[in-house]
Amino acid sequence: MEKFECLSCGTFYPADVFHYFCPRCGDPLLVASAKRGRTFRLERRSSLEAFQDYLPVTRIDPSLSLGEGWTPLVKMNRLAESLNFSSLFAKNECQNPTHSFKDRGTAVVFQKARSLGIKAVGTVSTGNMASSTAAYGGRAGVATCIFLKEGTPVEKILSTGVHGSHLFLVRGDYGNIFRQSLSLGRKLGIYFANSVDPYRIEGYKVASLEIFLQLDRRLPQFVLVPVSSGGHLIGLMRGFLDLKRDGLADRMPVFVGVQAQGCSPLARAFARGRETWTTFKNAATIAHAISNPSPPGGRLALKYIRENGGLMLGVSDAEILKAQRELAALEGIFCDPASATTLAGLKKLVKIKLARPRDVVVAVITGSGLKSMETLKEHRIPVHKTTVAKLESAVRSVFPES
Amino acid sequence: MEKFECLSCGTFYPADVFHYFCPRCGDPLLVASAKRGRTFRLERRSSLEAFQDYLPVTRIDPSLSLGEGWTPLVKMNRLAESLNFSSLFAKNECQNPTHSFKDRGTAVVFQKARSLGIKAVGTVSTGNMASSTAAYGGRAGVATCIFLKEGTPVEKILSTGVHGSHLFLVRGDYGNIFRQSLSLGRKLGIYFANSVDPYRIEGYKVASLEIFLQLDRRLPQFVLVPVSSGGHLIGLMRGFLDLKRDGLADRMPVFVGVQAQGCSPLARAFARGRETWTTFKNAATIAHAISNPSPPGGRLALKYIRENGGLMLGVSDAEILKAQRELAALEGIFCDPASATTLAGLKKLVKIKLARPRDVVVAVITGSGLKSMETLKEHRIPVHKTTVAKLESAVRSVFPES
Repeated sequence: MEKFECLSCGTFYPADVFHYFCPRCGDPLLVASAKRGRTFRLERRSSLEAFQDYLPVTRIDPSLSLGEGWTPLVKMNRLAESLNFSSLFAKNECQNPTHSFKDRGTAVVFQKARSLGIKAVGTVSTGNMASSTAAYGGRAGVATCIFLKEGTPVEKILSTGVHGSHLFLVRGDYGNIFRQSLSLGRKLGIYFANSVDPYRIEGYKVASLEIFLQLDRRLPQFVLVPVSSGGHLIGLMRGFLDLKRDGLADRMPVFVGVQAQGCSPLARAFARGRETWTTFKNAATIAHAISNPSPPGGRLALKYIRENGGLMLGVSDAEILKAQRELAALEGIFCDPASATTLAGLKKLVKIKLARPRDVVVAVITGSGLKSMETLKEHRIPVHKTTVAKLESAVRSVFPES
Repeated sequence: MEKFECLSCGTFYPADVFHYFCPRCGDPLLVASAKRGRTFRLERRSSLEAFQDYLPVTRIDPSLSLGEGWTPLVKMNRLAESLNFSSLFAKNECQNPTHSFKDRGTAVVFQKARSLGIKAVGTVSTGNMASSTAAYGGRAGVATCIFLKEGTPVEKILSTGVHGSHLFLVRGDYGNIFRQSLSLGRKLGIYFANSVDPYRIEGYKVASLEIFLQLDRRLPQFVLVPVSSGGHLIGLMRGFLDLKRDGLADRMPVFVGVQAQGCSPLARAFARGRETWTTFKNAATIAHAISNPSPPGGRLALKYIRENGGLMLGVSDAEILKAQRELAALEGIFCDPASATTLAGLKKLVKIKLARPRDVVVAVITGSGLKSMETLKEHRIPVHKTTVAKLESAVRSVFPES
């Protein structure tokens, strides 16, 4: 019998996809059960199958998968050199099926939904999670119900709706919409797999297991990850905690949760030594994907960070834009502003001499730059306008004869 | 000594990245040399390294790779059922680093450029090839020179320029710009790796080798692929020809090159039994990525198709849009209109009873839907607008209590 667990108050509950917040203390519940004698099944090509022992599923239905996972761990030599590092890596989650890390969680959610015979899956999202849920719902033939906040850009609405989702564009407070989704889900039998859904979080663990194997079973010193609701950070940390529990790792990497200063309830709470966050008022940042003023997994994320020697940082929009440009121009990785917080955060670690040249550092790149094209207008990108007749002299002005 | 070969007139030339069209007959040259005793090196994680024996490179420099290749082969059960097929697959090339198949070719181009000590790489493109070349140039620290046609959407310009490319927005005939790029490249030492560059084409072979292995060393009956310049089709066919030459395959799959009827010089030439194409006047299609009225590899592509029992088809924009929607809604794959031609083409094969229920069919999905967001406005995607207060009744209207 699968169980959910509240890490804050130590209470256990029977696993139930319609109840994943602790009724006592309000924190998100996590999957408590762990399998014994876990092994990697590396002869399996699919990531879910390879790491099945670490996931709360009894069998994998491949017809629900879109080929998520096994994203590249890209060694960034040019950026490393500029920062005086020897081993700097990007775990590029943009190469997932809908071009964000969300697919890892969504894939597990749909395995669970299918095994429970659930007829509809929902989510509350402003972008990546919406299109991921819609895509996997289309793939599974399971109806999806997506709540989007009024003001969501039309491109994000349409690229979700193309999968045949039922889209609701809702005016009102985001926290309110989040709470309503859960109560409505219970009434109508819609499994709302929101950002801190426990099965979603288990799915995020897999990226950590991949990093460990891609580094030839070594641990990085630092893992930098953008933080919004807290779910992704918690999942990644649980992956390394599993390795430690199984004796494959003797320590934890230092996890660095990075937020945009314009919406940084967790970095603020961490800096002040608080156990939990307060709502971040007048949130404003270019990193929309991580702009969550009331992160539901925030207290739990702070607890994980505190107990495992991690830290939380805030970075400015200017630092984010600069980092986005550097990742694209020096390493060929065009990511969204949320992902670029990782590089901006690393620079801070270097500045305060916390990260040192020989450390192995992994930056988790969470979503594609194609998902936030509006940001590009912030960059001054030069374009030479010319005609066929004048092309040669235009090119010669940039590339003189060698 | 590496050689280039003209398949049309049988002439050989010393390999030279600045001269890859036959001076006699005008067709693109191909890499002639093949290694002996080729094997798959499947213990290597990277696709380039695993298939190095099939590529014209003596060693792979991993610092130039972005983790291209090993894209998923997704079994599409729901679409298959709707078409009365048992085995229908999508080779989803959108999961490459810049979200299109171009990365496979670009990756090989930069390996070659580095080994030759070339200081600048260029390309002429309206989209996918531009961002791919710019990204790998950024990664390699090699200057890139991109010629874009006047009228290229600003998003495509910016998502290329973010990598630090030198961008030239050129007014004038596209064929003229293409020719100028090659002569200018020779003068200024810029290696213009355009759509039919021989090293680019070799890179495309790898997807075919992956398909073969992902099908457990079986051959599909049909491979459907969108066709523009012809380079991708030629490369994919060469992959299977290599397998045949090495005795791993006893036949070729039937290759089906699909074009949009609004710009289908090759499908038209094929239908008329011609050896070559004539310029397609007044080209107009929603499938911008394959809208090439004068395909430089067209004659060669027709020759490959003719000699290996393949065919060329045209599909309408309405058929393309319908197929795009079905891939997204039934299988969770949001691709660009060019990619959707493959499903539209398959339906034609079914209609004329050329493809049969037990055939194994692979559709090559070449680029992400995120690259052509403007298309989404063509789909009528319903959105329920509501408020938090009215959310419950809005949702109940779609999801009645079960």
